[in-house]
Amino acid sequence: MSTDPRAGEAGTQIEPEILDELLSMRASIDNIDATLVYLLAERFKATQRVGVLKAKHQLPAADPAREKNQISRLKRLANEAQLDPEFAEKFLNFIIEEVIRHHQAISSAGLGSEQSSTEAPGAAAVGPGESAADAAAPHDSTDR
Amino acid sequence: MSTDPRAGEAGTQIEPEILDELLSMRASIDNIDATLVYLLAERFKATQRVGVLKAKHQLPAADPAREKNQISRLKRLANEAQLDPEFAEKFLNFIIEEVIRHHQAISSAGLGSEQSSTEAPGAAAVGPGESAADAAAPHDSTDR
Repeated sequence: MSTDPRAGEAGTQIEPEILDELLSMRASIDNIDATLVYLLAERFKATQRVGVLKAKHQLPAADPAREKNQISRLKRLANEAQLDPEFAEKFLNFIIEEVIRHHQAISSAGLGSEQSSTEAPGAAAVGPGESAADAAAPHDSTDR
Repeated sequence: MSTDPRAGEAGTQIEPEILDELLSMRASIDNIDATLVYLLAERFKATQRVGVLKAKHQLPAADPAREKNQISRLKRLANEAQLDPEFAEKFLNFIIEEVIRHHQAISSAGLGSEQSSTEAPGAAAVGPGESAADAAAPHDSTDR
């Protein structure tokens, strides 16, 4: 068993120069993963800020045109980056599910620390005249 | 209807300075998303290279110790970044599913352009003595 935890099982039967190459590739993957984690954290902070802004100014939570643009733009970028565009769309949907989960958590707990507690939480993101279905889940469909 | 496509429906009933703030936040989200797409493309290139290296040197595809380390490291980084650690784990699993899909595609089509076509594709990543179950899906469990 290798003493380097990153070698794992592969360390047991592998030539040193091949192991070095493998560990170097894994180190790059680890660097990319750390960047992804920090970037995702920043993205959720941004959508949180949008959610608070919309709630504060009683803007409609949903914006289907924006979402459609996001998807087509990400697919185009994916093509440029040689990433499967279908995966890019799946990825955005995966993130959106988490944004919804965050918004549901905000909705149950009030509007979060950035929002004055004197403002009505649940209904604030829904403008007058919006449907009961929208009002029932006011934070489920804001910017993603 | 706003002429700025990013404004979407929100552009119809919103004060100009609030719209500016919203569009500025959306532009940041769009920048983050572009970075995510390019970074994910790079990550898949890296796992692809690992897959080819392992196949070339007949290294075992699976490395559970490595995967366990990846998950615990990502959860620690998520904590530092104030991202939900459970989400970080879900995210890694989501990426892994796509890596598996790529490896299955490589497996059906041969080992990809980096690999000489004279090498046996399917069996190359599986060492002697590995189980029939491993041999049936040799590219399903390499580095992620």
